[in-house]
Amino acid sequence: MSEFGKLWAEIAPVGRVAGGGYLRFALTEPELTLRDWFRAQAGRRDMTVTEDGNGNLFAWRGEPWAPGTVLTGSHFDSVPHGGGYDGPLGIVSAFLAADRLPADRRIGIAAFAEEEGGRFGVPCLGSRLLTGSITPEKAAALQDRDGITFRAALGAVPSGPVGTISRMAAYVELHIEQGRALTAPVGVASAIWPHGRWRMDFAGAGDHAGTTRMTDRHDPMLAFAHTVLAANREAIRSGAHATMGRVQVEPNATNAIPSLVSAWLDARAADTATLDRLVDAVIREAGERAGRDGTSLAVTAESVTGEVTFDVPLAEQLSGLLGGAPILPTGAGHDAGVLSGHVPTAMLFVRNPTGVSHSPAEHATDADCEAGIDALATVLEALT
Amino acid sequence: MSEFGKLWAEIAPVGRVAGGGYLRFALTEPELTLRDWFRAQAGRRDMTVTEDGNGNLFAWRGEPWAPGTVLTGSHFDSVPHGGGYDGPLGIVSAFLAADRLPADRRIGIAAFAEEEGGRFGVPCLGSRLLTGSITPEKAAALQDRDGITFRAALGAVPSGPVGTISRMAAYVELHIEQGRALTAPVGVASAIWPHGRWRMDFAGAGDHAGTTRMTDRHDPMLAFAHTVLAANREAIRSGAHATMGRVQVEPNATNAIPSLVSAWLDARAADTATLDRLVDAVIREAGERAGRDGTSLAVTAESVTGEVTFDVPLAEQLSGLLGGAPILPTGAGHDAGVLSGHVPTAMLFVRNPTGVSHSPAEHATDADCEAGIDALATVLEALT
Repeated sequence: MSEFGKLWAEIAPVGRVAGGGYLRFALTEPELTLRDWFRAQAGRRDMTVTEDGNGNLFAWRGEPWAPGTVLTGSHFDSVPHGGGYDGPLGIVSAFLAADRLPADRRIGIAAFAEEEGGRFGVPCLGSRLLTGSITPEKAAALQDRDGITFRAALGAVPSGPVGTISRMAAYVELHIEQGRALTAPVGVASAIWPHGRWRMDFAGAGDHAGTTRMTDRHDPMLAFAHTVLAANREAIRSGAHATMGRVQVEPNATNAIPSLVSAWLDARAADTATLDRLVDAVIREAGERAGRDGTSLAVTAESVTGEVTFDVPLAEQLSGLLGGAPILPTGAGHDAGVLSGHVPTAMLFVRNPTGVSHSPAEHATDADCEAGIDALATVLEALT
Repeated sequence: MSEFGKLWAEIAPVGRVAGGGYLRFALTEPELTLRDWFRAQAGRRDMTVTEDGNGNLFAWRGEPWAPGTVLTGSHFDSVPHGGGYDGPLGIVSAFLAADRLPADRRIGIAAFAEEEGGRFGVPCLGSRLLTGSITPEKAAALQDRDGITFRAALGAVPSGPVGTISRMAAYVELHIEQGRALTAPVGVASAIWPHGRWRMDFAGAGDHAGTTRMTDRHDPMLAFAHTVLAANREAIRSGAHATMGRVQVEPNATNAIPSLVSAWLDARAADTATLDRLVDAVIREAGERAGRDGTSLAVTAESVTGEVTFDVPLAEQLSGLLGGAPILPTGAGHDAGVLSGHVPTAMLFVRNPTGVSHSPAEHATDADCEAGIDALATVLEALT
């Protein structure tokens, strides 16, 4: 078995569930097991492990945060029932690429916390804290679906910005591609589409499903349903992406008209103007329908990230180092997008043959993963 | 404080939750507490308590199941965050009405299990088992949302039909009205609309919300949303009731296209032909939309109950006894509807000033509740 195959087999069972895919929410048992594995890998390589008080974990060859260090890595956490490659591939590849570097090269490997926002709702929470794009107080108060705060899960109020990030020579994140745009084994990221999450609370009047006349109802499920279809239609019309994949209903009983339907709009577009127009149109349609039904709508922008254009000379340098690897944008958010405002940042993508991600069906071939490790080693050697 | 006020205050805190209303699911701690309370009330009155092996509880004055006994009662279980009157009012009223009867009258008071179907999905589960309209094996296998079977909750396979039900002189259930049709303090039921629950599983392909092109998606949320609006439109068009108040999404993550959306259609109409047309139309529209989106639909009729017409001479007799109380139909299902095929059955309704039910806002005035107890005592005295 290859070195990649061996290391991959060590983590493959962690958090895998019978229903398919993985449950590796940040700071829950499976993710903590992966962090222990990370510490063990660092120990085998005589790397120094540090934490930053924000939930992020680092392994260093050389002095932690020494100026000129090249940082690489990704995240362990998954979306619910997500695939195994999204995140962990970047960390496994980092350790294996580090093994191929001359001993004097200063590198750091990062495991960022809560990249998916699958537990506390704000994606890239660890890298946002590290770069100061969310306050420790706001992050501390975020709650998971069981009402556990990020503060409680972390065991402390997060410590906030780590200024030394700007002294790093670069951050390079390897990640499985999440669409079908990459046809070579490895590519280089050009940009991340602007994107965001909007929570939409549709409030009505709970009542008996059997006895309440249709004309007497204030059923918030109707405006939600209208909004699902409007978001889909507007996204197609504008060449953007819109999804309503999460919904919570109160009381969620078959024989009760709901009193509250909370749903999340995930929207992304190639440029900010298109994204803004899309979200405005969806919210307007949602509000109009809610008003017609005698229900109400409250919208909260939970996280909105502007367009990220990665360091263009760096991307071109990497593409050149990799024999002209394709340069392509993505609709997926990454910690690299958050870090890009603070340190020269690049991403390497590994081909995803079906384009499926955030699903148990996510897959990359071993050969492409090996090519990704080769590429990351080449890039790290050139940058250190 | 009135006798009603005192008894009502004893049970009012049981299962009341901070978020509003009650969580009194069948065979969970709050409902078991109410069963203990029931036993204590029976004990105070020297009534014999029996169970029927199906989760139903009875208190008897006279020999249990003695021919000619008049049975009254209702249920303790609630919908999630339901009101406190729906069910328990009938049991509290039964004990207080019994107190007013001459000592020689043979009555039984019933607390039926899982009337709402709020835990195991099949409403009137206890009375269906007692009358043989569901098999013990099928009931035993029903699961709650945590995967606990009815068998496990009950501690045994249910024992099934109780033939002695047909030897009872009558079953009279007092219940809060659940619409606004009753303007007098007390009314008499004429019929229950035919009604049912259909589970609709919309299956698609889970994928990444950020990266999957709109044209590549198989998002089952779209057909669900279309169906919500279709059910509402068809119900208005046909003068019927249709509600989709419960939905479960896999994986239910903001940044993932769902792989599965399971939703329940609650539909009711004044006659079976209208109900059938309504449900057929909704399922047809749902299937068409699912097909257009490259998703699939599977429909399961979880419980379908034909029209119930209560014993007409009995209803007219009761109305007469109560000084010409109004006789009216309801869209709500009741154990009385299930029992009506096996024993002469009647229902008394207590006025609901706002018509709100299955909601924390459900309410009846103390004066109307007292009037209900008076009416029930009058009826029981006349029938025993």
